[in-house]
Amino acid sequence: MTDLPIAAVIRIAKANGAERVGADAAELIAKKAEEFIGQLTRDAEKLASHAGRKTIKEEDIEMAFKKN
Amino acid sequence: MTDLPIAAVIRIAKANGAERVGADAAELIAKKAEEFIGQLTRDAEKLASHAGRKTIKEEDIEMAFKKN
Repeated sequence: MTDLPIAAVIRIAKANGAERVGADAAELIAKKAEEFIGQLTRDAEKLASHAGRKTIKEEDIEMAFKKN
Repeated sequence: MTDLPIAAVIRIAKANGAERVGADAAELIAKKAEEFIGQLTRDAEKLASHAGRKTIKEEDIEMAFKKN
């Protein structure tokens, strides 16, 4: 079970050329996307904290993303 | 505008330690997650096709993910 809706994941996959996506595959894509969001958030949180903020801003996400 | 719901993205961010997430930051996380799903799907699609299938399976996602 993931927090991201599987239907949205499948729509994005099809917009990127997938013809058919198995149910297990769609679940796994959602899980990997959630892990991606988790990692990006943890890195951005550290950067926000480093800048003396409690709110994650766009610039924290940009910097966290470039780090990877 | 992203296909992934911002509310779900914010829930995942908070589950990963974010205290507050700015609206622009949440939009950007969703956009980056969609790009991640797109790249993973395109790689998995090539692997499925290589294996003579039209359906993306879990094993294609696993292999595509390891490639990155």
